[in-house]
Amino acid sequence: MKVAFQGESGSYSEEAVIKYFGKEAEPIPRKTIPAVFMSVEAGEAEAGVIPVENSIEGGVGESYDSLLTTSLKVVGEINLRISHCLIGVEGATLEGLKRVVSHPQALAQCRAYIASLGLEPVSHYDTAGAVRYVKELGDKTVAAIASARAAEIYSMTILARGIEDYGRNYTRFLVIGRGEARRAPKEKTSIIFTLPHRPGALYEALGAFAKRGINLTKIESRPTRARPWQYNFYVDFEGHVTDEVVREALSDLATKTILLKVLGSYPAWMDPSHEL
Amino acid sequence: MKVAFQGESGSYSEEAVIKYFGKEAEPIPRKTIPAVFMSVEAGEAEAGVIPVENSIEGGVGESYDSLLTTSLKVVGEINLRISHCLIGVEGATLEGLKRVVSHPQALAQCRAYIASLGLEPVSHYDTAGAVRYVKELGDKTVAAIASARAAEIYSMTILARGIEDYGRNYTRFLVIGRGEARRAPKEKTSIIFTLPHRPGALYEALGAFAKRGINLTKIESRPTRARPWQYNFYVDFEGHVTDEVVREALSDLATKTILLKVLGSYPAWMDPSHEL
Repeated sequence: MKVAFQGESGSYSEEAVIKYFGKEAEPIPRKTIPAVFMSVEAGEAEAGVIPVENSIEGGVGESYDSLLTTSLKVVGEINLRISHCLIGVEGATLEGLKRVVSHPQALAQCRAYIASLGLEPVSHYDTAGAVRYVKELGDKTVAAIASARAAEIYSMTILARGIEDYGRNYTRFLVIGRGEARRAPKEKTSIIFTLPHRPGALYEALGAFAKRGINLTKIESRPTRARPWQYNFYVDFEGHVTDEVVREALSDLATKTILLKVLGSYPAWMDPSHEL
Repeated sequence: MKVAFQGESGSYSEEAVIKYFGKEAEPIPRKTIPAVFMSVEAGEAEAGVIPVENSIEGGVGESYDSLLTTSLKVVGEINLRISHCLIGVEGATLEGLKRVVSHPQALAQCRAYIASLGLEPVSHYDTAGAVRYVKELGDKTVAAIASARAAEIYSMTILARGIEDYGRNYTRFLVIGRGEARRAPKEKTSIIFTLPHRPGALYEALGAFAKRGINLTKIESRPTRARPWQYNFYVDFEGHVTDEVVREALSDLATKTILLKVLGSYPAWMDPSHEL
């Protein structure tokens, strides 16, 4: 089964693919998040895995924007514990470093650590790609931030482990596909809606869930690009679109929103190692 | 009047300081957003100006985190139209460029433009600082992204104007101070609250406002760093903490939240050029 992800071999997204689909999956690397959507839409891959939210840095804007416009469905979710390593070429030392290369989110998650070493942060499109870049550069003053797995894949040296500023660092990924998700005992549904700007609009919208005892597991507001300070709301809740109570809530919600898009219902992630 | 801001002379934050306080203000540059808070807390500056939200890229994490822990009050707001320029040394050309240096938010706002030129994006802590860095480097293959004003201050060449991917690009800044804000005909209040995780918690919290016809102008959820997938809500609404209806709403809200912090009431930004 071909599964598209953003980044290169050794990236956290690829780790999420393997964690979810197992060793039989064939991870297909793509340069950007929109390219992951396009691969699945075009049938080059059967599914895609995209990061949507990090427990420290918040939402991944590009993923939310693509979810708004795609015809694909959300068919699953994955929570992955993120632990970053500082990775250099052979002979590199912490004292000798000047620059550090990684994805902007990884740089942000290690902001205090990078500042403590006085390093210049340099953006790269991918964490594992940054390791490959540093390897090719062969410069002992430049390091990358990525997973231990990426260091192993590129036979590079780990200079420090667990360098993220906050320990409880998780990234949530969504699995996107062309069909419906498999059924499971515990399920979630993801939706996007836009509200008219008047007092009580969000309150009334959330009432569609609260009145029926439906538990929201996440709410995130994102600016719409059409109008400054107008928001799209990304909401996840417990339940499946075919549940009677969810159908009622959604038809109620539809009367209160300017736009309502159901992204899909899917099995909730169950991981005993993920403390909540 | 000394006003602290993040960045260097020529940054968008400094432009916001001048727009709000006029030419008499003395802008005091600080390296980081937490350092702006510290300057005002320590009395080195009478006020500070911090970016909180961009209409394209969303919230500024570091500002939200500092607002959660500061003893300062929010005493004002500023909306600034952001238009980016590509800025190089004398003799630089679009065709000859290889790398582009700027603040991660500015790089993100010009993502498509940078990709179209095939440039490598490099993070810098400040837009204007990136211009100074490129000037010192004196390399025709490296450009910065910053304001036209920054190009002027450092006598650099503007290679392209209005390079942001989306035209309706505004950044909202908050003014922070040690005292209370001046009164005005139209006012806003900013608060932060944390909710217990159970069905209807957010709905009930927003009911405190909706039932009293109080208009929310913004809501943003941010992960708390204490627990994965627990959120702080940053909410702005119309009205002043001394209004009877607002006092009632806040005391109602306090019974429904784990944490409630009132950041302050302040004059709403009125700018005829800011289309809403």
